Amino acid sequence: MLPKKNTYTVAIVGATGAVGREMVEILEGRNFPVSELVLLASERSAGERIEFQGSNRTVRRLTKESFAGVDIAIFAAGAEISREFAPAAVQAGVVMIDNSSAFCMDEKVPLVVPEVNAHAISGHQGIIANPSCSTVGMAMALKPIHDVVGIKRIVVTTFQSVSGTGKRAMDELASQTVALLNFRDVETKVYPHQIAFNCLPHVDAFLENGYTTEEVKMVHETRKILRSESLRLTATAVRVPVFRCHAASINIETEKHIAPNDVRAMLSEMPGLIVYDDPLRNIYPLQIDVAGKDEVYVGRIRSDDTVPNGLSLWVVLDNLRKGAGLNAVQIAEYLIKQG
Amino acid sequence: MLPKKNTYTVAIVGATGAVGREMVEILEGRNFPVSELVLLASERSAGERIEFQGSNRTVRRLTKESFAGVDIAIFAAGAEISREFAPAAVQAGVVMIDNSSAFCMDEKVPLVVPEVNAHAISGHQGIIANPSCSTVGMAMALKPIHDVVGIKRIVVTTFQSVSGTGKRAMDELASQTVALLNFRDVETKVYPHQIAFNCLPHVDAFLENGYTTEEVKMVHETRKILRSESLRLTATAVRVPVFRCHAASINIETEKHIAPNDVRAMLSEMPGLIVYDDPLRNIYPLQIDVAGKDEVYVGRIRSDDTVPNGLSLWVVLDNLRKGAGLNAVQIAEYLIKQG
Repeated sequence: MLPKKNTYTVAIVGATGAVGREMVEILEGRNFPVSELVLLASERSAGERIEFQGSNRTVRRLTKESFAGVDIAIFAAGAEISREFAPAAVQAGVVMIDNSSAFCMDEKVPLVVPEVNAHAISGHQGIIANPSCSTVGMAMALKPIHDVVGIKRIVVTTFQSVSGTGKRAMDELASQTVALLNFRDVETKVYPHQIAFNCLPHVDAFLENGYTTEEVKMVHETRKILRSESLRLTATAVRVPVFRCHAASINIETEKHIAPNDVRAMLSEMPGLIVYDDPLRNIYPLQIDVAGKDEVYVGRIRSDDTVPNGLSLWVVLDNLRKGAGLNAVQIAEYLIKQG
Repeated sequence: MLPKKNTYTVAIVGATGAVGREMVEILEGRNFPVSELVLLASERSAGERIEFQGSNRTVRRLTKESFAGVDIAIFAAGAEISREFAPAAVQAGVVMIDNSSAFCMDEKVPLVVPEVNAHAISGHQGIIANPSCSTVGMAMALKPIHDVVGIKRIVVTTFQSVSGTGKRAMDELASQTVALLNFRDVETKVYPHQIAFNCLPHVDAFLENGYTTEEVKMVHETRKILRSESLRLTATAVRVPVFRCHAASINIETEKHIAPNDVRAMLSEMPGLIVYDDPLRNIYPLQIDVAGKDEVYVGRIRSDDTVPNGLSLWVVLDNLRKGAGLNAVQIAEYLIKQG
């Protein structure tokens, strides 16, 4: 458990990546009580400098000895690194908040979106997992509905930005776009196919059953966060040529009837959620508008009459903020508050 | 009815638009028996020249007198023009094939995808309608499934390219992209919001019930083409920053069970449809690959276990070819064959 202090030594593993950099900004922006910030990355990135609170901090190489004296370590370097270094971190008495998928489905590890299930944090045994970005947006938008009318089934199709893959994918979208506009050939390195001016129905690895790990993750994570093992969810995850923010087209079937206006009223009261829904005035959430925002945006809330109690909605969140960095920092803030 | 001849006088209304230009290419590419090609457009575009069979043809201004001597007129200039000029065309004895939404839901007008319901053509009274591009892809992929196991419900989310809006929208995506890559401000003229590096959950006009006309059209057109009034369909139509081809994430529930392998086998036999489905080898339909192709491509066919008989699939078609121009020309070919 976290000791009661005024300030904390915070480590960021994967500090030079897209989520890591965002994390540093979020810690600074929210005045997180940091006594020392330990920036960790692979040997390749060690030595880089990142600004925090007005001074440049040097990124150090991650080793199993990096965690001495650290109170909270936020991991944003992928599942392999998380698995490799978790034992050393826990051994050193650190509370590890993991952005990767490594421990999401581990029964001993709470999987947390603070606005939805902060209570789960208190049961942690050294590791707390951050859900994948697509799950965070869906869980935020669906939790109030689930509490009141019970969600039976979800059919979701995502529109995921390249920043979900990382900084190299953002560079690839930019460079492919420039190449195409200059009639040059496109190089593909990060994705198996061109992403510029194209949509890939392929996020993460494919499984034998035809689904991707991303799609399966959304099923299990949503059930775990909403504490509903009977919830049925089927997903299609698609990568779109957008730099930042993930959108999702969500269709749900609830146990009891609820009118769109009641959904709007209910969601308006959810902390961290903004209802942005007036389509006749061209008002609906857009990825370019939500970039840099802390809140999850919901719009296009409407009845679906093809099932007894159907609803459709459109959800957008900044995958680097609420979808990753911010959610992790909010978990750390909750830990501190609870002592 | 169309007289039996060796060659026909064909008019294209809206010849200078994205679909119109494609139509000219398709007529030439398929060796359609054209004796004379009459290119018609608004006063603004009259005088432009378009190449057909090696020589430049001058575009003339569309008037109510344009149809004298014309056998077949293909309209691709929007619903208003179709409504205004249909009576003159029919009066002149022309068979009108309409690409707009003007007559799609008119009970006296057959709505046709030749591979799916060519038989409906014979009942025409001067006008035959081409379905909207999103409906064409879905009808092609779902017809064989519907015939064998009966489709009860469809949940579809589209990824529609800007060429569906027309040439000006393609220019807008290009110019906004260039502006952003040069750190200049973006101008929006065609769409209410920036389309470059952004997805708009907004295709066509919004209705009071929160759906767009595009989404409602998909419901009614699919029912009409599949001749199934009880078919339930709910759609979310999204515009994506892609130049050409529409994709759709489709989830269906059927009356009887069918395994993905049987679906693949069945769809492989459908004329005009290509099953492109081997995700473990990164094989699935992509908009950039399907551009310029005549066939509808289907992939990511998989079981959805959240309902008794669920299936998900990913469909891509070239909205300017099978989604518009090609389908219209195929209707004309069928008319000629039937005499």
